[in-house]
Amino acid sequence: MTAPSSPETATVVRVPLGARSYDIHVGRNLLARAPALMTPVLSQKRVFIVTDSNVAPLYLAPLTQALTDAGLRADHAIVPAGEASKDFGHLAKLLDAMLAAKCERGTMIVALGGGVIGDLAGFAASVLLRGVDFVQIPTTLLSQVDSSVGGKTGINTAAGKNLVGSFHQPRLVIADTDVLATLPRRELLAGYAEVAKYGLLGDAGFWAWLEQNGAAALNGSHEALREAIVVSCNAKAKVVAADEKEGGIRALLNLGHTFGHALEAEMGYGGDLLHGEAVAIGMALAFDLSVRLGLCPAADAARARAHLKAVGLPVDPPRTGARGAITAAMLTAHMSQDKKMKDGAVAFVLARRIGDAFMSRDVSAAALDATLTAALAS
Amino acid sequence: MTAPSSPETATVVRVPLGARSYDIHVGRNLLARAPALMTPVLSQKRVFIVTDSNVAPLYLAPLTQALTDAGLRADHAIVPAGEASKDFGHLAKLLDAMLAAKCERGTMIVALGGGVIGDLAGFAASVLLRGVDFVQIPTTLLSQVDSSVGGKTGINTAAGKNLVGSFHQPRLVIADTDVLATLPRRELLAGYAEVAKYGLLGDAGFWAWLEQNGAAALNGSHEALREAIVVSCNAKAKVVAADEKEGGIRALLNLGHTFGHALEAEMGYGGDLLHGEAVAIGMALAFDLSVRLGLCPAADAARARAHLKAVGLPVDPPRTGARGAITAAMLTAHMSQDKKMKDGAVAFVLARRIGDAFMSRDVSAAALDATLTAALAS
Repeated sequence: MTAPSSPETATVVRVPLGARSYDIHVGRNLLARAPALMTPVLSQKRVFIVTDSNVAPLYLAPLTQALTDAGLRADHAIVPAGEASKDFGHLAKLLDAMLAAKCERGTMIVALGGGVIGDLAGFAASVLLRGVDFVQIPTTLLSQVDSSVGGKTGINTAAGKNLVGSFHQPRLVIADTDVLATLPRRELLAGYAEVAKYGLLGDAGFWAWLEQNGAAALNGSHEALREAIVVSCNAKAKVVAADEKEGGIRALLNLGHTFGHALEAEMGYGGDLLHGEAVAIGMALAFDLSVRLGLCPAADAARARAHLKAVGLPVDPPRTGARGAITAAMLTAHMSQDKKMKDGAVAFVLARRIGDAFMSRDVSAAALDATLTAALAS
Repeated sequence: MTAPSSPETATVVRVPLGARSYDIHVGRNLLARAPALMTPVLSQKRVFIVTDSNVAPLYLAPLTQALTDAGLRADHAIVPAGEASKDFGHLAKLLDAMLAAKCERGTMIVALGGGVIGDLAGFAASVLLRGVDFVQIPTTLLSQVDSSVGGKTGINTAAGKNLVGSFHQPRLVIADTDVLATLPRRELLAGYAEVAKYGLLGDAGFWAWLEQNGAAALNGSHEALREAIVVSCNAKAKVVAADEKEGGIRALLNLGHTFGHALEAEMGYGGDLLHGEAVAIGMALAFDLSVRLGLCPAADAARARAHLKAVGLPVDPPRTGARGAITAAMLTAHMSQDKKMKDGAVAFVLARRIGDAFMSRDVSAAALDATLTAALAS
């Protein structure tokens, strides 16, 4: 039996980015310690919290109480929960609310929520008064291991996801594993897809550890959960530090995402397919494509698929989307709008084996089409 | 008599910002040379031109022709002329147009127009696909000497001007003095206010030169005009290089702007008061305030006012705005929303004499009120 961690046992992951370096604190009961953790990065005794309608009833009051007890002024805005809030209209409304509250350049924006809140609040912070600091308090497993590391912010447009945004590093990330207790099982699993991604793309040892301990992390072991989050954050921090603006190896973090984004676009971002679920399917497809191109043993693709499936993640694409039956052509059309396009060629992250991913712009349309067609018929 | 400059006599001002350094080319007939000047900073043979409904009929076709002749693909968007285009709605529409044209990370955004176009297109470039490069081709005197140097971009919101935006340096600025020939006289004068500002804030010698040569620059001498632009760009480049993100001395460039922005807000940005006109009045008020605080000789304030007036610029605030008679209280209310606020104190740029400005947060409400009240009664 594992003894509950004391507040002091939080693990700190450093994201080393020179003047933009910051710490990720991972552990239990960190929400209550947020004021103390934030003090070193505050230039004014003022914060503006951005949260959503799901998270606000659970954690806005205790966080605000902790901050005001520490002598800070804490204003807030609550946006509707869900991906639909990541648009121009909500961004404009949020910025208007920050300005109406007379936020100044020294006011700290606090993103309290999942990836949508981190992306939206982070983007708002990056353009408010031409840029103010922000702190992330991610409340989903997905945002704790993915979107809170690396400074990508953004919103969606008619043309696709995250096509408008900025690189804006947080000053601090507070990843409290206790808040994951209120997360719906499906959301927890979706976050686990990104955890698994770090194993698949570059760490075969971590993948083996997940095959042993992943289920425990998903079923209440804070110890296993913290380990999974810390390894994931360290993996992402290492890549981001080497390539802050995504010129090279950072692109490996997009394993499963080129497929995943296309699936999400086709499903309409309505909650029928969560981002993490799309990534799980996308990773399975990336391995399928790698096998089809003769780059990866079929056994590795099967092993990847087996563990994702075992914990409860989907690995096959949905048959029907917002426009009816999904075809390979519909998905490739979305891919051609990808941000990573260069001179018309789509970038794919492929794999030589579990733990060894690489980027390629040399995927033939025929191999891509065959992979998608096979998966859609499976 | 001055011989017309050959295309080869353009002067280059370097803005030294490390990896973000760039050149400003100032001279005649530069629009035709734009493709050659841009070649070194292009990573794709593609540009997307943003211009407005005033500039498009004059310069979009020749620029597009020059670019396509050089083998480049040139898409474009035309926004309505005027400050009203610097808002969320037009930003969203512009980004949608760029994405619909399938702009990629290597596509160069070209801002062809005045300050509004530079601010809007520059901001769009900074958030398109999380940031792409842009080139400024400023077509007003104001934008040639002010907004094209320093990388400030932004839009207006209900709360005020430029409260949302980013710092995003252009890769190149092409300031063609020939295009100023089509600029309405009032716009040329408004730009001259910013030229005069560089003399008033830090260069008494340049101020004396302007007293001698300013009228010639405004009346068709390309030689004098180029000199005025080059000195202004150099002055701003020096300040920006020392303080890219406006932590310190860059704030001096706001001489006249705290007053000016308040006047513009009260006049409703409708064209009744141009930005440069507001700055001219604001500089006169900043000198008045400095005299009232016992910091500056009255003779210097009078000399500043006299030259601005002599060339045809306004120096007294308008009596009536969008809401009726303008009062001192209405103007100070706008100032309290200024971006440079810190812990509730407004920053003013004051002067000890012509050519010697400094920043102060110690202006009493009484002195401010008395200065505004006197000016509004003059």
